[in-house]
Amino acid sequence: MPQYLSTSDPGFEAAFAHLLSLKREDSPDVDATVAAIIADVRERGDAALVEMTARFDRVTLAPDRLRIPDHEIDALCAQVPEAERAALSVAADRIRAYHQRQMPCDESWTDDLGAMLGWRWTPVSAAGLYVPGGLASYPSSVLMNAIPAKVAGVRRLVVTVPTPDGVANPLVLLACRIAGVDEVFRIGGAQAIAALAYGTESVRPVDTITGPGNAYVAAAKRRVFGRVGIDMIAGPSEILVIADRDNDPDFVALDLLSQAEHDESAQSILVTDDASFGQAVARAVERHLEILPRAAIAGASWRDFGAIITVRDLPEAAALADRIAAEHLELLVADPEGLAATISHAGAIFLGPWTPEAIGDYIGGPNHVLPTARTARFSSGLSVMDFLKRTTLSRMTPEALRALGPSAETLAKAERLEAHGLSVRARLDRLNG
Amino acid sequence: MPQYLSTSDPGFEAAFAHLLSLKREDSPDVDATVAAIIADVRERGDAALVEMTARFDRVTLAPDRLRIPDHEIDALCAQVPEAERAALSVAADRIRAYHQRQMPCDESWTDDLGAMLGWRWTPVSAAGLYVPGGLASYPSSVLMNAIPAKVAGVRRLVVTVPTPDGVANPLVLLACRIAGVDEVFRIGGAQAIAALAYGTESVRPVDTITGPGNAYVAAAKRRVFGRVGIDMIAGPSEILVIADRDNDPDFVALDLLSQAEHDESAQSILVTDDASFGQAVARAVERHLEILPRAAIAGASWRDFGAIITVRDLPEAAALADRIAAEHLELLVADPEGLAATISHAGAIFLGPWTPEAIGDYIGGPNHVLPTARTARFSSGLSVMDFLKRTTLSRMTPEALRALGPSAETLAKAERLEAHGLSVRARLDRLNG
Repeated sequence: MPQYLSTSDPGFEAAFAHLLSLKREDSPDVDATVAAIIADVRERGDAALVEMTARFDRVTLAPDRLRIPDHEIDALCAQVPEAERAALSVAADRIRAYHQRQMPCDESWTDDLGAMLGWRWTPVSAAGLYVPGGLASYPSSVLMNAIPAKVAGVRRLVVTVPTPDGVANPLVLLACRIAGVDEVFRIGGAQAIAALAYGTESVRPVDTITGPGNAYVAAAKRRVFGRVGIDMIAGPSEILVIADRDNDPDFVALDLLSQAEHDESAQSILVTDDASFGQAVARAVERHLEILPRAAIAGASWRDFGAIITVRDLPEAAALADRIAAEHLELLVADPEGLAATISHAGAIFLGPWTPEAIGDYIGGPNHVLPTARTARFSSGLSVMDFLKRTTLSRMTPEALRALGPSAETLAKAERLEAHGLSVRARLDRLNG
Repeated sequence: MPQYLSTSDPGFEAAFAHLLSLKREDSPDVDATVAAIIADVRERGDAALVEMTARFDRVTLAPDRLRIPDHEIDALCAQVPEAERAALSVAADRIRAYHQRQMPCDESWTDDLGAMLGWRWTPVSAAGLYVPGGLASYPSSVLMNAIPAKVAGVRRLVVTVPTPDGVANPLVLLACRIAGVDEVFRIGGAQAIAALAYGTESVRPVDTITGPGNAYVAAAKRRVFGRVGIDMIAGPSEILVIADRDNDPDFVALDLLSQAEHDESAQSILVTDDASFGQAVARAVERHLEILPRAAIAGASWRDFGAIITVRDLPEAAALADRIAAEHLELLVADPEGLAATISHAGAIFLGPWTPEAIGDYIGGPNHVLPTARTARFSSGLSVMDFLKRTTLSRMTPEALRALGPSAETLAKAERLEAHGLSVRARLDRLNG
């Protein structure tokens, strides 16, 4: 049973605060193990990778076989059925088109003193993308990470993906091909992150690492952060649906379940201004849970973290949405754009009845790597920006320096940074002397 | 003595690699202490802040005096001499004008299937800015952090600044005023970061924390990251000057020293295509070190981490610059724009002889919070983006869903996410039925 809350209940504040504070993820503390793995890869390079890949993935590889050769990738890609190949290609085209629009512009201008100011954007030279193995090995995630990197202009894009028992996922490799990935290594876990960050004989190091992974991968990403850039550390998935009574309870139930089926720690919340609609959705969820293949996972998530909240009106729903700051927010109301305009915090908003969140997971165009665990209050989904960095530019003229130099000197002296002041003063003296 | 390197030397590669790998910062491991401080503030709130402020800053405050009242700020601001006031105001105006140009645009468009796609930017609701106490309490840093936040539209901007022995820095408070800071608390250290992240009775929590600090502050920021956003963890300052012989060695020496005087761990590097010019700069540095007030610090930095590298030509200099990926890069050559265009990695570039880096520290307009320790390979200086987040938007029409739904369903099935597929299929059946 999910939690039933109503803003009209006297105990609502406490119950809602409790819902927000639920610790959904119980990350094991693997930091010491991960530190040892990273140290080992730094010290022994490929030898450590080979050994750990044999131990964890049960695959024994010569060092020169850590990288999957192109002909093997080609052979695996050829196994992908045409329908999947076509779907992946449509998805890639749409994701590429969306992310191309994100490219920021370089700017430069001359101010009223004649100084040139501006900035320019350049891509990181090399990026690494971690792809999990096994069941959570999602080709859609490959597209969502790799395409923004390539749109940003990253020249060398490296994928690491473990192949447990030697089994590679053809659709993942096809996604790599379609997205323009340059190198694929069949390694995983913290050892793959270490190899990407520090390099080994076979793996040249990269500058930024993105992509999802288990607790070991997450801990390794935290550890190498600073040495390389990383994307966010994603938590379990979430969806908030705000729906009025003029919706099909079945659609809403399936949207809630499509997050719940990801993970027992996922969270699905319905906010509605009609309590009986909420009941109808709850019944529909139960019906689907009887037949859904991943019912065990989805049912646990819905039971432990699901909620149906009845509100008095939609403004109240918007206020709750800002407090929840959901990763995914569906607005199934008469004027979804109007409601969206009153909500500040959400990773992605899906407007109207024909935009199930699953469209966004695969094919809508926007990225599906989004801030979880209320971090949409301060962070954004993955984008081309994760693979770009900005360099600021300035050029003073003698006139501009004459005008601004004395103020800089005053502030330098006030901060007791004498050489700062002198570096300006020496030039002013030259200009004036 | 700084290191003298030349790309013509047979041992250059090894010496340069050594220079890049120098560990300049010896951060004490304060993580356990910081964890305890954070836990204490979370548990006891204001009482913990009061106690730690008495212990670390030797100031005893009632909880309702943790925040500096406006009239006290006014009185302190009134002590600032007119010249400093005017300089701060000029700096603020220029920083504001530069950062206003950084504001990204919302976008939305309709694609060829009729689907609406786009994104919008919103500010974080509340931001906290840590300002160190004592000597490193820089009013310029207040402007550089606070102005981008306010330009981004942050409604509540909170400063914490310790007042050791009860002494506040009037210029810092005036900078807060000019930048539009809303609340100032006289607390510091890891306890201030904990208060900003988790809140106490007096300090409402914020969503993002920026600003420099000592090892305790840095460790606390790392710990609260995820709960709130943080800016980068900055390392010691750096400058790389690329200069040809047509420069005044004195200017270059002062520019090198203006980084060296920050910190014994700072690093100043000169790259020149003229060995005798390099010698002249070295002599000028020595001359200034005889009279500079902060000669002890600057001298240690120059001796331990400074370097003069002679190259054969400017393309070689550009290649080294990309490997160094310096925080500050001055290009003192005949065609600085042309050389800049060949360099990818730098936090900020200063072009030509009339743009000493100190201008950028105070008054140029671009931000002086910049990536250090080679992180300019993958990260950028502080900007309005640190206080904004992007929400993606999508709205499918029935036609768009009919066109795209089947591909989404195919991919969902391939990933064995049945409910994802069903949430699309149910709608397709409705549209087709």
